[in-house]
Amino acid sequence: MTEIFKNIPEIKFEGSSTKNMFAFRYYDSERIVLGKPMREHLKFSMAWWHNLCGTGADMFGVGTADKSFQSTPETMEHAKAKVDAGFEFMDKLGIRYFCFHDVDLVPESENIVETNKRLDEVTDYIKEKMKQTGIKCLWGTANMFKNPRFMNGAGSTNSLDVYSFAAAQVKKALELTVKLGGTGYVFWGGREGYDTLLNTDIKFEQENIAQLMKMAVKYGRSIGFNGDFFIEPKPQEPMKHLYDYDANTAINFLRQHGLDKDFKLNIEANHATLAGHTFQHELRVSAINGMLGTIDANQGDYLVGWDTDHFPSNVYETTMCMYELLKAGGLKYGGINFDAKNRRASYTFEDMFMGYILGMDTFALGLIKAAEIIEDGRIDSFVKERYSSFEVGLGAKVRRGETTLEELSEYAARLGKPEFPGSGKQEYLEGIINSILFK
Amino acid sequence: MTEIFKNIPEIKFEGSSTKNMFAFRYYDSERIVLGKPMREHLKFSMAWWHNLCGTGADMFGVGTADKSFQSTPETMEHAKAKVDAGFEFMDKLGIRYFCFHDVDLVPESENIVETNKRLDEVTDYIKEKMKQTGIKCLWGTANMFKNPRFMNGAGSTNSLDVYSFAAAQVKKALELTVKLGGTGYVFWGGREGYDTLLNTDIKFEQENIAQLMKMAVKYGRSIGFNGDFFIEPKPQEPMKHLYDYDANTAINFLRQHGLDKDFKLNIEANHATLAGHTFQHELRVSAINGMLGTIDANQGDYLVGWDTDHFPSNVYETTMCMYELLKAGGLKYGGINFDAKNRRASYTFEDMFMGYILGMDTFALGLIKAAEIIEDGRIDSFVKERYSSFEVGLGAKVRRGETTLEELSEYAARLGKPEFPGSGKQEYLEGIINSILFK
Amino acid sequence: MTEIFKNIPEIKFEGSSTKNMFAFRYYDSERIVLGKPMREHLKFSMAWWHNLCGTGADMFGVGTADKSFQSTPETMEHAKAKVDAGFEFMDKLGIRYFCFHDVDLVPESENIVETNKRLDEVTDYIKEKMKQTGIKCLWGTANMFKNPRFMNGAGSTNSLDVYSFAAAQVKKALELTVKLGGTGYVFWGGREGYDTLLNTDIKFEQENIAQLMKMAVKYGRSIGFNGDFFIEPKPQEPMKHLYDYDANTAINFLRQHGLDKDFKLNIEANHATLAGHTFQHELRVSAINGMLGTIDANQGDYLVGWDTDHFPSNVYETTMCMYELLKAGGLKYGGINFDAKNRRASYTFEDMFMGYILGMDTFALGLIKAAEIIEDGRIDSFVKERYSSFEVGLGAKVRRGETTLEELSEYAARLGKPEFPGSGKQEYLEGIINSILFK
Amino acid sequence: MTEIFKNIPEIKFEGSSTKNMFAFRYYDSERIVLGKPMREHLKFSMAWWHNLCGTGADMFGVGTADKSFQSTPETMEHAKAKVDAGFEFMDKLGIRYFCFHDVDLVPESENIVETNKRLDEVTDYIKEKMKQTGIKCLWGTANMFKNPRFMNGAGSTNSLDVYSFAAAQVKKALELTVKLGGTGYVFWGGREGYDTLLNTDIKFEQENIAQLMKMAVKYGRSIGFNGDFFIEPKPQEPMKHLYDYDANTAINFLRQHGLDKDFKLNIEANHATLAGHTFQHELRVSAINGMLGTIDANQGDYLVGWDTDHFPSNVYETTMCMYELLKAGGLKYGGINFDAKNRRASYTFEDMFMGYILGMDTFALGLIKAAEIIEDGRIDSFVKERYSSFEVGLGAKVRRGETTLEELSEYAARLGKPEFPGSGKQEYLEGIINSILFK
Repeated sequence: MTEIFKNIPEIKFEGSSTKNMFAFRYYDSERIVLGKPMREHLKFSMAWWHNLCGTGADMFGVGTADKSFQSTPETMEHAKAKVDAGFEFMDKLGIRYFCFHDVDLVPESENIVETNKRLDEVTDYIKEKMKQTGIKCLWGTANMFKNPRFMNGAGSTNSLDVYSFAAAQVKKALELTVKLGGTGYVFWGGREGYDTLLNTDIKFEQENIAQLMKMAVKYGRSIGFNGDFFIEPKPQEPMKHLYDYDANTAINFLRQHGLDKDFKLNIEANHATLAGHTFQHELRVSAINGMLGTIDANQGDYLVGWDTDHFPSNVYETTMCMYELLKAGGLKYGGINFDAKNRRASYTFEDMFMGYILGMDTFALGLIKAAEIIEDGRIDSFVKERYSSFEVGLGAKVRRGETTLEELSEYAARLGKPEFPGSGKQEYLEGIINSILFK
Repeated sequence: MTEIFKNIPEIKFEGSSTKNMFAFRYYDSERIVLGKPMREHLKFSMAWWHNLCGTGADMFGVGTADKSFQSTPETMEHAKAKVDAGFEFMDKLGIRYFCFHDVDLVPESENIVETNKRLDEVTDYIKEKMKQTGIKCLWGTANMFKNPRFMNGAGSTNSLDVYSFAAAQVKKALELTVKLGGTGYVFWGGREGYDTLLNTDIKFEQENIAQLMKMAVKYGRSIGFNGDFFIEPKPQEPMKHLYDYDANTAINFLRQHGLDKDFKLNIEANHATLAGHTFQHELRVSAINGMLGTIDANQGDYLVGWDTDHFPSNVYETTMCMYELLKAGGLKYGGINFDAKNRRASYTFEDMFMGYILGMDTFALGLIKAAEIIEDGRIDSFVKERYSSFEVGLGAKVRRGETTLEELSEYAARLGKPEFPGSGKQEYLEGIINSILFK
Repeated sequence: MTEIFKNIPEIKFEGSSTKNMFAFRYYDSERIVLGKPMREHLKFSMAWWHNLCGTGADMFGVGTADKSFQSTPETMEHAKAKVDAGFEFMDKLGIRYFCFHDVDLVPESENIVETNKRLDEVTDYIKEKMKQTGIKCLWGTANMFKNPRFMNGAGSTNSLDVYSFAAAQVKKALELTVKLGGTGYVFWGGREGYDTLLNTDIKFEQENIAQLMKMAVKYGRSIGFNGDFFIEPKPQEPMKHLYDYDANTAINFLRQHGLDKDFKLNIEANHATLAGHTFQHELRVSAINGMLGTIDANQGDYLVGWDTDHFPSNVYETTMCMYELLKAGGLKYGGINFDAKNRRASYTFEDMFMGYILGMDTFALGLIKAAEIIEDGRIDSFVKERYSSFEVGLGAKVRRGETTLEELSEYAARLGKPEFPGSGKQEYLEGIINSILFK
Repeated sequence: MTEIFKNIPEIKFEGSSTKNMFAFRYYDSERIVLGKPMREHLKFSMAWWHNLCGTGADMFGVGTADKSFQSTPETMEHAKAKVDAGFEFMDKLGIRYFCFHDVDLVPESENIVETNKRLDEVTDYIKEKMKQTGIKCLWGTANMFKNPRFMNGAGSTNSLDVYSFAAAQVKKALELTVKLGGTGYVFWGGREGYDTLLNTDIKFEQENIAQLMKMAVKYGRSIGFNGDFFIEPKPQEPMKHLYDYDANTAINFLRQHGLDKDFKLNIEANHATLAGHTFQHELRVSAINGMLGTIDANQGDYLVGWDTDHFPSNVYETTMCMYELLKAGGLKYGGINFDAKNRRASYTFEDMFMGYILGMDTFALGLIKAAEIIEDGRIDSFVKERYSSFEVGLGAKVRRGETTLEELSEYAARLGKPEFPGSGKQEYLEGIINSILFK
């Protein structure tokens, strides 16, 4: 096979398995963080769509990057060239996982039977590559937003015929995920929402989505899928409103429909901020609900209102992300998937590497710093101490649910007026974070 | 008693019970909308805080409006003057309900025992007025955000002592609500949230809030409160993040803690838009979850990021609000409470009337137009027809949960490619709305 | 020629020149508004790009609407089919103007010389159609954002070669505008901005843009273009920051570079709200700076952060738009161009008509209501009266610039404390608007 | 005098002039950055209002912090106690400048003549303290937003009487600034804007503001004020729209009214982000227009929509701020004023110190890192190289304004199709920043 990514400056490949990061080295078998090699904390994954299919097109302009990889687009030859390019790319950067949508892998045919044949063929080829390299599939999914048939939704469509295509795609994508050994299956409902309430029955649509998910669980379990199903919250775009707005909304939906045993959440940084939350907030909400499943690692621009999918570059944010992951005990079936794309003006092969290096470095440093925060202990002990009045006596009764308004009211009357609850010390705590990040 | 609001131009009071609206007449016993007098659809309520206590102070300036009502602020004389003013105001406008926080009614003492005595005194006076006028209490609540003791939250505080004051206030406010015959009790968690995750244990705090609510339900039911408890979602402000972010988040919380039988939601228009949702969206989400409880009627500014609490003036929005209420069968224990305030530069008594007239007219017209939309039928029948493929055959099996991915997949394979699902016709539907609003 | 748009329900074409609007009739020679037929106030224009080229593709999905008009896309046959379709469409709706980008008209060739030849050919065909129908060109422009060469900007590009292509396109588009008799030439700088300041020299880029505009003015005037040049402000998208952020920013740029004599602004409703302003605000700012040139009529969604280009449906907003236009004395060289597109799920020919009907009706009603506001006079006289203390005496000296801090300070000292400035009466004024809109 | 701030943990005061920063040491006479001691780059200033007057009140709650400093609020004794506290505070932290509004210094009397007397008295006391400590005044201003008389604006008020009070306050504040040796005078127009266009004549109001500024310049220059006048842009809050929306808007206003020789801008980080811009953007826009005057150092929360005035903690942002300042050659008459306040729950004296330490450290580290970026040179040389095609030949002709559309068009025709303009390399550049920040 021909090498595709040649002469990438600033990356010195010392043999096929050595990866020199641009600024930091994450892939370093000797560095142990909180008892484990860094690479075990950082299950980095390449997103097939952005990295191998995305050309930089946006709403106002066509693509800038050539991803033909010396083959003719919209052919099976191209599908395989993408496999070759992807595995070379992952290998050169030491990435050990990938994620995919069905239609990332092959050109979609007019007829779903033909599309499925193509999927069988390309996954045979991928499986072979996986065996050769040890690279694994993190999760798979079906793209139920690109094809015009899904204009009114997939699980939430108003058309039974379209619904059946959503079901067929989910079935096939589950089979492919099992075939490739993926430990997760994602539902991102890009069209599961509405543009106007004037034409929409939310209840009806959500019930149909739940039905589709129940069938997916049943079928997935029947063919040996033992991993997690994931919902990926996003507040809007392309639809004006998406049903899985944020973590709490998605959890509410899962609980309402009895899906909370099989599903967890795929939290994306950029989707969090579009919903008005920090990435850390969404991770925390997921974690305390037992719903933290996997991560779509990217970064948005706080000052624009759409999904930009930047590569992560903000070490504050990756530090707090890794802090939440460490606190939650890691991701069982999930990983850190770079659902990120090069800026449109970063159109070269070198930029593809620069993007991943930026993201991987930023997360690796985030891990190191998060561990230092935990080892430092000041943040954690401040929080513990802060709530200590609930550890004994009447406070402990509150926690156990054994007191009443009457008892508390009498206690308050005896106090007459309480002491202030103690300073929240936000500025002090932010100073600690800086002192650890920049020591 | 002296008349307080004299010589208000543009309002011609023809006797104490005749109310001429500025633009429209909502209070018209002869006008029947969908089988009921308008006033039964429109249980308007005056918010004690904004109307009788608010002076127009903002973060950058002190008050502009004089609400002393010829008495000395921070005295019981003033507390009673507010009662007089409030009942005269409601009577002149034909408003038949009011809502209150504990500390709206009396100046808060340093000692909670003394504050409670004052509350007993003033509510005796209010009760008398209610008897004289027939005006009722819609709902009551405890203000657990103004006093500095609540700086870190009330139910979510880190201090047991502060928590006991929250409990004591809830107990008293429940007693007052029962005394005044209120059919609702509201929790708005203005400090139930966080400013930084660096000092916050969300799980701990939410469990304590749930505990407080459970105690409130138990106590309330024990003293004869048979109405609804309401949570009022708001995404942020004053805290950076509030736990009851939006309807879905609040419902998730209620379900998680088994509070969904006793609680419903109090949906505020301005809070909805701050959370990135339309008012209609939040009403719909509440309704389809069986959680639509009551309405805080106001309006925000889409282009600013804080709670402005304008009086409602946008007939599009009140129409869609009333449409949702009519569809949901009305509000059992709730009403339409004007949680709205005059602009800071609208500092006269006349402005107080103008604000309520604007709000009441806008809602009255919204009701009339919503009923016309329903009677027109085009919107509703479009929606029904749109989903009709799920009424029979395989579609009906989907609805009943009796099909599988396999069956649907085979159906899709037979189709090969589905027809498009039919136009969503948003522009046509928006044209219908305009043709009804402006006919 | 074959009729393309056949059997459009709900539009009854009674002869080729009679247009029955869905809800209202704007095209009614007998209705005079403020002394002029409505059609003279409402110079509606069709946007070639959205209506004839747009298929509904978005960032997450391919097109839904078929705009091949029975020909093969990417051919000159298709270019002419679009001309046929466009003129039939305009004729059926009574639209008398159109606007275009160069590449809306023909498929762009790899070589600019060939592209220009195609443009000559198609504009010959358009010119013939114009003669037959009396339909006119409102304005033209060059698309300098779609082609990947403009990834770093057109006038603001870092590459001389790319800059020369921008210049060449502007030259050609100016020639085409003159050929078709357009009275305006627009610069919308979709790529004139930056994605990151790390690689950008704003000053350098803005100077180059100004240079390009100066050359355009010089060339345009030399070939007989006597109309207005227009800048179209937009804050962001596709770039993270666009230089013509809003009206004030664009005016500052024009003044700084001496371009304010030849340029005015093209104000778009959706761009205004994306910049944090109301449409009315941007119109007012333009008008009081003598910079109100033309209108891109559409509507955004206040709760999403990208350019949605809805058809206008909000009568409040079109009313205040027409109010500003009437106050400003109309648009000399400009018009009301529907830079609006059907929702992606509105994919039929009928939807194309429904969109324009919605927009035209909404603007027509806005005109009628704006005139009623002016005739009513209460708003205008309130504003005039409000500032009346500056009409005489010391106030008039302030206005004439003839007083000093000393004089005013002495006056203040004599007053000791001023009276309040009078209520702003916002609620009253909003009530007036409703009473006129819904009378 | 009694020491006010005693026993502040974590700050070890080794003698009156040694300041140990929490994480870093900015005040280190031996550390030279780009040829100057750090303290000369970092003219830190204490904001009188937040630090000495602010108690943590917000729209939903009263103050939490006690700033009585052992005296009775609303007395001249308290005014002097604040002076004592302020100078002790500045001295302990090594802060060498302060900024003030008139009404920060004394309790405002009902009568402006009396208020001015109090101002004379307290500034005598301040002047003495300045002599003793060497601490200086950076800039002064008049608070023309808090008093209810300014409800409709100060310079933009509709009332001549109110306007005269604005003029009187400006006159007095200018005199105080000169008396205390301040090198700047700020106009922040917190009420210079509108709440609704229904009652507002923008043109009239802006002309009156300009008139007030012209009188201020004339008077200021006449009494020996040789420093800069500053406008402080902010997009909104408390008014719905503020006229000095952002840097470009303020510059446009200054140019239009011939005020650009005497005025520069006071750029505040939090105001920048509220306007939809990065802090760096506003600094760059100001700098390239020759308008970069002074800095209000703070930080907002990107996910909330109001002015939070956090202490700066984000080193990315202070680094890029200091990068812009270094590139612009520093601030002649300005400095870095901490217009920042403790979080409401940070209510102790210790928190006051923690806030300033956080801010000062964050800026000190920003300076060090900005200098390293410049010394590293990769960013700057990338930018320079990027535009190099405009350095010679036809490119240079573009820069000199010596070419035409015709010439460029011929050049483009010869090329047929240009090369791509070179990758923008955003990911690479972001990686460089991280490698410098976290080396």
